[in-house]
Amino acid sequence: MAGILRLRTVTLMASIFPERITVVDVTPGLGLVETQSAELFTPDRPLRMAGGAELTSVTVAYETYGELNAAKDNAVIVCHALTGDAHAAGWHDGDKRPGWWSTLIGPGKAIDTNRWFVISPNLLGGCQGTTGPSSVNPATGHVYGLDFPLLQVRDFVTVHRALLEHLGISRLHAAVGGSLGGMQVLQWALDFPDQLDQAIVIAASAGLTAQNIAFSAVAREAIMLDENFLGGRFAEQGKNPDIGLAVARMMAHITYLSEDAFTEKFGRAPQGATSDPGFGVDFAVESYLRHQGETFVSRFDALTYLYLSRVMDYFDPFGDATPPQISPQGPKILVVSFDSDWRFATEHSLRIVKQLAARGAGVSFRQIHSPWGHDSFLLDVPDYLDTIRAFVEAEVSTGRALRPDLRRIASQVPRGSRVLDLGCGEGELLRHLARQGCVVTGVERDGAAMVEAIRAGVPVLGLDLDTQLDEFADGSFDVVILSRTLQAVMQPAEVLRQMSRIGDHLIVSMPNFAYWPHRLRLMSGDMPRSSDLPYRWYDTPNLHYATLASLEALFDSLGLVTEKRYALSPSGRSVGAGANLRASSAIYVLASSRGS
Amino acid sequence: MAGILRLRTVTLMASIFPERITVVDVTPGLGLVETQSAELFTPDRPLRMAGGAELTSVTVAYETYGELNAAKDNAVIVCHALTGDAHAAGWHDGDKRPGWWSTLIGPGKAIDTNRWFVISPNLLGGCQGTTGPSSVNPATGHVYGLDFPLLQVRDFVTVHRALLEHLGISRLHAAVGGSLGGMQVLQWALDFPDQLDQAIVIAASAGLTAQNIAFSAVAREAIMLDENFLGGRFAEQGKNPDIGLAVARMMAHITYLSEDAFTEKFGRAPQGATSDPGFGVDFAVESYLRHQGETFVSRFDALTYLYLSRVMDYFDPFGDATPPQISPQGPKILVVSFDSDWRFATEHSLRIVKQLAARGAGVSFRQIHSPWGHDSFLLDVPDYLDTIRAFVEAEVSTGRALRPDLRRIASQVPRGSRVLDLGCGEGELLRHLARQGCVVTGVERDGAAMVEAIRAGVPVLGLDLDTQLDEFADGSFDVVILSRTLQAVMQPAEVLRQMSRIGDHLIVSMPNFAYWPHRLRLMSGDMPRSSDLPYRWYDTPNLHYATLASLEALFDSLGLVTEKRYALSPSGRSVGAGANLRASSAIYVLASSRGS
Repeated sequence: MAGILRLRTVTLMASIFPERITVVDVTPGLGLVETQSAELFTPDRPLRMAGGAELTSVTVAYETYGELNAAKDNAVIVCHALTGDAHAAGWHDGDKRPGWWSTLIGPGKAIDTNRWFVISPNLLGGCQGTTGPSSVNPATGHVYGLDFPLLQVRDFVTVHRALLEHLGISRLHAAVGGSLGGMQVLQWALDFPDQLDQAIVIAASAGLTAQNIAFSAVAREAIMLDENFLGGRFAEQGKNPDIGLAVARMMAHITYLSEDAFTEKFGRAPQGATSDPGFGVDFAVESYLRHQGETFVSRFDALTYLYLSRVMDYFDPFGDATPPQISPQGPKILVVSFDSDWRFATEHSLRIVKQLAARGAGVSFRQIHSPWGHDSFLLDVPDYLDTIRAFVEAEVSTGRALRPDLRRIASQVPRGSRVLDLGCGEGELLRHLARQGCVVTGVERDGAAMVEAIRAGVPVLGLDLDTQLDEFADGSFDVVILSRTLQAVMQPAEVLRQMSRIGDHLIVSMPNFAYWPHRLRLMSGDMPRSSDLPYRWYDTPNLHYATLASLEALFDSLGLVTEKRYALSPSGRSVGAGANLRASSAIYVLASSRGS
Repeated sequence: MAGILRLRTVTLMASIFPERITVVDVTPGLGLVETQSAELFTPDRPLRMAGGAELTSVTVAYETYGELNAAKDNAVIVCHALTGDAHAAGWHDGDKRPGWWSTLIGPGKAIDTNRWFVISPNLLGGCQGTTGPSSVNPATGHVYGLDFPLLQVRDFVTVHRALLEHLGISRLHAAVGGSLGGMQVLQWALDFPDQLDQAIVIAASAGLTAQNIAFSAVAREAIMLDENFLGGRFAEQGKNPDIGLAVARMMAHITYLSEDAFTEKFGRAPQGATSDPGFGVDFAVESYLRHQGETFVSRFDALTYLYLSRVMDYFDPFGDATPPQISPQGPKILVVSFDSDWRFATEHSLRIVKQLAARGAGVSFRQIHSPWGHDSFLLDVPDYLDTIRAFVEAEVSTGRALRPDLRRIASQVPRGSRVLDLGCGEGELLRHLARQGCVVTGVERDGAAMVEAIRAGVPVLGLDLDTQLDEFADGSFDVVILSRTLQAVMQPAEVLRQMSRIGDHLIVSMPNFAYWPHRLRLMSGDMPRSSDLPYRWYDTPNLHYATLASLEALFDSLGLVTEKRYALSPSGRSVGAGANLRASSAIYVLASSRGS
């Protein structure tokens, strides 16, 4: 068996952005890391695969970083993507390159190996130490080739769980993975939610699009049409489908980077100074791609490429007729996408979020701005790394004193309610409500505020109120809150309509344009300003003003019934009669048509 | 020579969306069209190519539709894209399919063959009737192969012009082309502006990105690595690089469609009902791509693929050190992009617009909404076809009476000025100013209004005022107008700053929030409304209100000097003293820091 173990270095990150390696702190604290190996399934205890087949011998290559603590509650597993090996962090002793996820994992990194015990296995079906289609089939003594059973993402989870058992670990603090790795984490969270405190799903998909499948299909065609593929039996005849595999890799590689990343890296620079125009390597980008194709052939197996790409095509974890519920006490889930990723664009992550939310899971979501495309998850993108760290290290904070208006809003929310706070900021109100037994979700667009909410253990979704509220299912919350935000959205009526669809009760607060000092300001020819409307007319987040009377007219026209109204002075005190004149803002508790 | 002419049907559109053919009116008026052939260059009169080589024998296949009129001023040439043949319209007698641009060209179509005489040649380097690398080199008696000289876009223009000469046509009403065809039109407009009344550049680029080049490079690698490519001499040995060409085509085809187009067409549908999962054709999209690859091999030549893709990589018409100016009396140019095109995305078209505008050309630009991606230019997208028709048939309209406020603005614009009108609507003001000898450009986002402006011969750009004014060069206009629009932009100060950068003088009109009825409305507790502010607070395009006093304070803070102010009543009459109280709106003539 050892003869077919090919422990090669796959420094994907280094191969994509070699020049960026120098700016990454390459985890000197870990030093050289040795790849270990475990035989997890044997004839006595075969691997029963999701598709029905059995494997009587499965060896897994893996590495670990950090120390397992006595309570065994600090373990984090890394699920790898299409081309990663077991070497996620530290230095590899082969060519002295850092592991492929050294941006994320190491001493002091976002996943801090001084605190967490990190486990990084190579995948079933792989070609870098774990049993796969180029391993020898013990039943025949020959390489499996295309006789290796088709994989499902569940099979990866089965093998990962066997590795945990082998290591004596019953429960994980977190499972984390990008792309194909994120699919494994998602499947794990759905099938074995009690085994995970946290699940981190990065740049992944729960259902490839036709275009996604098309790219992989062409890559597989290139491999299988290669004259040296020989029906998958190439190894036995001492051949390799080099050309097909190189073309496949070149093409796939284009999809891993954004167009801007290519432009920044290469532009239209020629390759070499004196090249004659022709059909060779005229442009730098051509040289780079050819290099990618050639080096890939030397470290990756054509059969593994077929199996690991095909498993993604079929992944459809939410396709079941009866979707299982996930307890809010189940794993906290973080979904991350990158705005320049066009391989698995943000829409893929949003679909995952929507499906998880519909099953009751506590989900956070953030789209990270990064120019690099799909491979951003491997790169040094500070907003991304900060978000992961805040999530992994989140602790429920002790209470701070709430602002008076938020205190008043909190007093209107029944204990145990499902609460959605639109524009939740750092989540102060939701932390308070969570302590009161509410099941809370926030929506916030500001990245820094989101990270603080995540750090405080509040599930928060980075969505746009004007365009993305249809992510929430009808009646999925008891109370939907919009505090001092209605005036800043583009379409106030539409936002209220969506809130009414989503929740039984709404709590809305808004400044009052007809507050008497505003009237006096305009009467004297000036634009109204006050502590509730502090901005200059041309430099303000506020796009729509309303008097309390005109706001209430809109509520009426939308069928929203005012159950309570708190008209407030600038200091937050209640105002009695004459609210439209005397109140600088008001809080409304409204019953939606669904709630009334 | 005839033996290597391969007059095959290339119904690109039909091959992409076969089911859509049925909804297209397939030009019964044209009936069957015969492809003609002309020997345009001979040993006595060789083709001198832009790269320095000469071809002593060039035959061109072409078709014509409609009739050349006596004045010979109704000719329109179609420049084709990577895979088009000469058969752009009518029926092909081979397999009874419509020409590849029958959506656009035919009796009553946007390019109406009842009115225009349309010429459609096959390209130099092609494989469907025009001399190319698979033609026989008369000097050797063998197929050229890779000895065929590298092409430049200028060479296509040279050959097209020779064809016009052959047909006795000295001047074109229009040249129109999509993708590679658009590049030819652009080069023509730059090199021979006096020969064109109009140039229509659709879904094109004036400089491929590294990602664009990368896709073509991988396609070429697939072809040239094919064991049957044989250094380009495959034909002589009776072979063809079928696999490489098929893989190249499959991959390229993915880039021609949007992700949404693939999703709508295939989703994740399986291919066939009973297929076992494996590495074959499991999904419908796989079957489709394989079919695309296989049929392409039967109708297209691998060498042509290399030459026509490479010519695009090198196209860089604005790379010259000394860019030529284009007279505003030169060709009117229309640039069109599609919002779902990720092969040549809108940014490519914007670069063309910016470069042309910097050279003084009269340019219109519109991004068309279409779900289909790059190939939208071949499809039945009504907004697109309407825009082309309006441009091709544009006639300078006779004047209508101007609205009073516009009349007043017009009176402030010196004759012969370069004028930019931001938010120009249907271009009423600009038509009036053009008749006064001004060189005008409009900016408008509403598609229907744009089409009307284009139909009236007004150059209009579909840009966003908040985010895209940096498309205009510093000081590129004498007068920049913003009429009743400042209140509807997201960032009024930034828009004014940009206007000040672009023009010497600004003319800005805006409603007055401090108009006395507004004051009284708020004083009585209602939101101000009037004929100048007619909308309800939650359903209005207006995002920022200002009193005349606060507007003037902003002008001051931006260094804009008010040269004239016209304070107006709702009926447009001048208001004397007390403007901030008595005027419902005002028009300002401002000197920018550059103008003062």
